[in-house]
Amino acid sequence: MITSSSNSRVKQVVQWQKSAKEREEAGIFLAEGFKMFEEAPEASVKEVYLSQAAYAKLDQYPKLQEKAECRGYELVSEEVFAKMSDTRTPQGILFAAERPVYTLEQLLDRPAPLLVILEDIQDPGNLGTIVRTGEGAGITGVIMSGQTVDLFNPKTIRATMGSVFRVPYIYVESLEEAVAKLRGRGIRTYAAHLEGECCYDSFSFREGTAFLIGNEGKGLRRETAELADDFLRIPMEGRVESLNASVAAALLMYEAYRQRRTNLVTV
Amino acid sequence: MITSSSNSRVKQVVQWQKSAKEREEAGIFLAEGFKMFEEAPEASVKEVYLSQAAYAKLDQYPKLQEKAECRGYELVSEEVFAKMSDTRTPQGILFAAERPVYTLEQLLDRPAPLLVILEDIQDPGNLGTIVRTGEGAGITGVIMSGQTVDLFNPKTIRATMGSVFRVPYIYVESLEEAVAKLRGRGIRTYAAHLEGECCYDSFSFREGTAFLIGNEGKGLRRETAELADDFLRIPMEGRVESLNASVAAALLMYEAYRQRRTNLVTV
Repeated sequence: MITSSSNSRVKQVVQWQKSAKEREEAGIFLAEGFKMFEEAPEASVKEVYLSQAAYAKLDQYPKLQEKAECRGYELVSEEVFAKMSDTRTPQGILFAAERPVYTLEQLLDRPAPLLVILEDIQDPGNLGTIVRTGEGAGITGVIMSGQTVDLFNPKTIRATMGSVFRVPYIYVESLEEAVAKLRGRGIRTYAAHLEGECCYDSFSFREGTAFLIGNEGKGLRRETAELADDFLRIPMEGRVESLNASVAAALLMYEAYRQRRTNLVTV
Repeated sequence: MITSSSNSRVKQVVQWQKSAKEREEAGIFLAEGFKMFEEAPEASVKEVYLSQAAYAKLDQYPKLQEKAECRGYELVSEEVFAKMSDTRTPQGILFAAERPVYTLEQLLDRPAPLLVILEDIQDPGNLGTIVRTGEGAGITGVIMSGQTVDLFNPKTIRATMGSVFRVPYIYVESLEEAVAKLRGRGIRTYAAHLEGECCYDSFSFREGTAFLIGNEGKGLRRETAELADDFLRIPMEGRVESLNASVAAALLMYEAYRQRRTNLVTV
């Protein structure tokens, strides 16, 4: 059992918690909790750390126990575990997982792709929620600008509730080039915009569809919005001028999903 | 200009930032930023604090300047302001506003009320986002269990983006009694539930409607879910088992709003 926080593996984990760059260089991300460990594909799990208390509970979860034993794990004292953990009330299980890697081609190579394109989303909770909701709505991928917050930030990972293991994603240098490539594949891009004349539920999203979602404070840059084939409007009552980015994304993705599930007629 | 953080008014504000109880006793809440100040009804603003830097910028906003002058304000040094502020990068304007107070009767006394009922929502960001989205969807009120996080938490206030000034709310001791009262008024209550057989968009929400939304980690308590007239299901693809509470609330409220805006037929 590791009881010292100067242990080299402990120091490495602490370093990974802090540094997006080091996580990226190692090609891994860190995740915590029983639920996340359950969701992780076995082959992607690289290192597992268990606190004594979590180890004692593990035999209540035979599948997780088997997974941990199969990958090998390190026992860690409660005190050391608290230092490795990113959460205030750690569940006592932390692991490093290999990052899935996708190409833009892989995101597009499906019938009628449904994509979200994120410009500079800054809040890890928003990004994670978009990925989680996106899996629920059956999206085929998330395209992110280079300035979007790190998908592998521990807070983002937590907010995905495991969807990070399953939703294809890509960071791109140029949203303009990405949208052009989508257009070449017959995928229409939509931007939620105050100038949108038509309501989001008056478009058909049954064919290849991509939704542009802008930064929390600033919305979409004008140049980015203009890449869209259509502006659409999310109607709002009262004095509300905009919705939270993850709420706007959810409404659009679930409207597309609703159309794809049902035969809807708005009369 | 106040330059000392031992000034009694500064100490009071710092105390209000920390203590939900003291805010409640004073019948006020604290809000920050130009946008929030713009949204605040003039009569509700009790005390205004401006940093030197914000004061210097104020003449770019003649309406806000007038509002501040009309209510009276205190100039505060940057250093003292940083202590009073709840944010890491304060905008330099902070104010205490009188809490609006509503009765359950007021929330119900409208044609075809549209309500959300929150059970023990814990995340201030989620609560604030629900209120903001709710105003956008035209809800007539938010009913909250006593264990729901404080609506007047500075983080909640921020996430409402001003909707807190406009969306009627009430904390109730018993959700059971509240739902019974709704039923007496002909308002149907719906709970999103895994056992829901019908999809959320197959109900009509044109008449009086209330949506029960559960705690982030635990969902709705069984007893609470059973208060509902109907269970509904939000369909999910992939391995997603639930959605973020503010996303689930948004999908339901916007579905009701969509039906009330349009004549929708699902065939």
